[in-house]
Amino acid sequence: MHTLLMSDPAALPAAEAARRIQAGALSAIALTEALLARIAAREKVVKAFIHLDPALALRQAAAVDAAAKAGRRLPLAGLGFGVKDVLDTADQPSQYGSPIWAGHRPRTDAACVALARRAGAVILGKTVTTEFATRFPGPTTNPHNPAHTPGGSSSGSAAGAGAGFFHAGFGTQTAGSIIRPAAFCGAVGFKPSFGTLHRGGMKVMSESLDTIGVITASVADAAHAMAGLTGGDYGTPETKPGRAPRLGLCWGPTASQAAPETRAAIERVASAAAKAGASVTPVELPAAAAAGLEAHQLVMNGESAEALAWELDHAAAQLSPVLRERMEWGRDQPRAALAAGRAAFAAARAAVAEAIAPFDALLTAAAPGEAPEGIGATGDPAFNSLWTLLHLPCVTVPVGTGPKGLPLGAQLVGAFGQDKAVLAWAEWVRQAAS
Amino acid sequence: MHTLLMSDPAALPAAEAARRIQAGALSAIALTEALLARIAAREKVVKAFIHLDPALALRQAAAVDAAAKAGRRLPLAGLGFGVKDVLDTADQPSQYGSPIWAGHRPRTDAACVALARRAGAVILGKTVTTEFATRFPGPTTNPHNPAHTPGGSSSGSAAGAGAGFFHAGFGTQTAGSIIRPAAFCGAVGFKPSFGTLHRGGMKVMSESLDTIGVITASVADAAHAMAGLTGGDYGTPETKPGRAPRLGLCWGPTASQAAPETRAAIERVASAAAKAGASVTPVELPAAAAAGLEAHQLVMNGESAEALAWELDHAAAQLSPVLRERMEWGRDQPRAALAAGRAAFAAARAAVAEAIAPFDALLTAAAPGEAPEGIGATGDPAFNSLWTLLHLPCVTVPVGTGPKGLPLGAQLVGAFGQDKAVLAWAEWVRQAAS
Repeated sequence: MHTLLMSDPAALPAAEAARRIQAGALSAIALTEALLARIAAREKVVKAFIHLDPALALRQAAAVDAAAKAGRRLPLAGLGFGVKDVLDTADQPSQYGSPIWAGHRPRTDAACVALARRAGAVILGKTVTTEFATRFPGPTTNPHNPAHTPGGSSSGSAAGAGAGFFHAGFGTQTAGSIIRPAAFCGAVGFKPSFGTLHRGGMKVMSESLDTIGVITASVADAAHAMAGLTGGDYGTPETKPGRAPRLGLCWGPTASQAAPETRAAIERVASAAAKAGASVTPVELPAAAAAGLEAHQLVMNGESAEALAWELDHAAAQLSPVLRERMEWGRDQPRAALAAGRAAFAAARAAVAEAIAPFDALLTAAAPGEAPEGIGATGDPAFNSLWTLLHLPCVTVPVGTGPKGLPLGAQLVGAFGQDKAVLAWAEWVRQAAS
Repeated sequence: MHTLLMSDPAALPAAEAARRIQAGALSAIALTEALLARIAAREKVVKAFIHLDPALALRQAAAVDAAAKAGRRLPLAGLGFGVKDVLDTADQPSQYGSPIWAGHRPRTDAACVALARRAGAVILGKTVTTEFATRFPGPTTNPHNPAHTPGGSSSGSAAGAGAGFFHAGFGTQTAGSIIRPAAFCGAVGFKPSFGTLHRGGMKVMSESLDTIGVITASVADAAHAMAGLTGGDYGTPETKPGRAPRLGLCWGPTASQAAPETRAAIERVASAAAKAGASVTPVELPAAAAAGLEAHQLVMNGESAEALAWELDHAAAQLSPVLRERMEWGRDQPRAALAAGRAAFAAARAAVAEAIAPFDALLTAAAPGEAPEGIGATGDPAFNSLWTLLHLPCVTVPVGTGPKGLPLGAQLVGAFGQDKAVLAWAEWVRQAAS
């Protein structure tokens, strides 16, 4: 049984799988078949995909094998990707979680999808998003318990990563749409510094907030995916750094919304990190942080209402009532309030940058608690919206389970641009807490 | 002749035309017919449009007349808009100035186009853009002399505004693509503070730079268009303010690139403003401004290369050689340099905000000189890229002509978010210099 598992190419770390395929020691077709077998076994319950075409995936894999044989440098050779369906794909429908866009076939790939393909990735399929990456959920279930939500809005990418369906799922975050579902599904979620992955070919809602990232099985896989996509240096988080981190323990303005199990889990992680040599210092954020968070709803809904101006005016009946109501509210806010909200964001960024400068990373919760029961709602971004508007890189790592046996996540937050460092410290903390 | 001119509804200021249509004193159909007559008389030479469908424009106008009659509030009632063809339109092709996108028909309008229609605008047609709003030009000529470029990349919107074809042309600016062509065509160009108009449905190239704005016949028309689009307060620039402005005369790091006629024109404007009561103080920008400008090429081309990742990998033969070469260069820059470039932008923003705080607006050139001869190149953004990366609101106003009889522009630059003020001071300066 153990040998069988070890011979499953889908169980390899992403970097090792890509290395073997590049070297011809493993075929992308075999890896893709292994992932498709995992999907076939569980997709009927998990429902991570809104579009899945195994034959198309295998054709992509064959092309990757040919390119590797021809010596093309392919850092993501043969790795399986799930693409949240707010990102365009030239060869697969792109429907943004809305009946308004049913059957839409874009002419090109989104920028991040094109970069993934250039690096040798196989786009397995489109993953379920909530409606336009907002609230109204899709059919996806939590891979740890189908009676619970996977979180959202990157529901399918989180559930698929948690179920081992692919090496990386693209997610997007406007409030908590990468970190929260990743935590709920026992996966690693990585929201890079704002602006890292180009949003061309994405159905952008809030220009001030929307950030593209990845959901993976491990921190190392997230770093490998980001490096392969961008050519940047995301380090090797599995390599132990030469020192322990200076951590700031930061509950932030939404501290009271943490469930007891979340409070206990983060305290346990903080103790384990301290025992492993980290300094752990409680951090109070400056008042500008809470003021920025106050403006999040208004900026998010105000900008999203502009993004959906055509849909509101020409297809309002096909919007969910909850989204229509929010968009009408956003549309009707005074323009000056929107500008003031963006100014509050900028002030929060400057103030928080100073407050967190003494630390290698902040440690906080990824979500209020375990994934809530039912799939009619995707949970609360209470521990995410602030970090999104601050544009800071965030990682969630799994740190045990709650009373219902569902995963809990610890979130590490770094300074702007310190993406490599925050990935390294997230893995350090995860190991310390294991 | 004078009475005839005054009875031409296309000669009315935008606010007055919309007011009359809203009140039923003028029909949107009559106004649209008047604009179409102007277009018919000159379009064969000017070539502002890549797509023009007079029957469709008249159908839109009829719908506006019906909506006005039904009492809908339409601040842009019946006003004619030209839409740069990097912005999607649901009812007209959207081809981004590239054969790769030939015949593309988007499902929805870009956000700014949908907002224009909501406010009662008539989308007359799609205006010529250079290839993906970069360098390779379209067929448009300068309305003041067809042997000269209209500038770019918003070539058709600038030429059309200069020729009186519409009340407002949407433009976009990554380096100098609104302000420069507007100045070349004797029009008013307005680049709002970064982020003002949502880029949803735009073929975005550089996420850090691309800004949507308008090109119009007058500052008052620009303010009216922006107010109608956003619901924000852009003031009434034609109303004389109660005091004269504190102006900073700022040539910036590209001072040496101003042609003698440009230097003379701006000095003349400065003298006239001083005579009218303004204080005019020479301003040296901090070193961070030049450092930001140094990074402009790298960030612009690095981000644009990501935006065009699909096109580069699947349709490179259909890119112009100049664009392909730039995109390959951008693609091959180290990732760390891109991040450093964005950091240089942020540092420049902070330093310049402080340096310009004592002034109501900066006065500078809009372009090195008159529109160059020939339509094979669109001129130099030397006096624009800095203000674009600084995210500051910019207005160009016509201030006479150069040795070849072509228009020169004076550019006013305001602090971030001070869009209403910079429009008011631009009109004040224009009147002082007239």
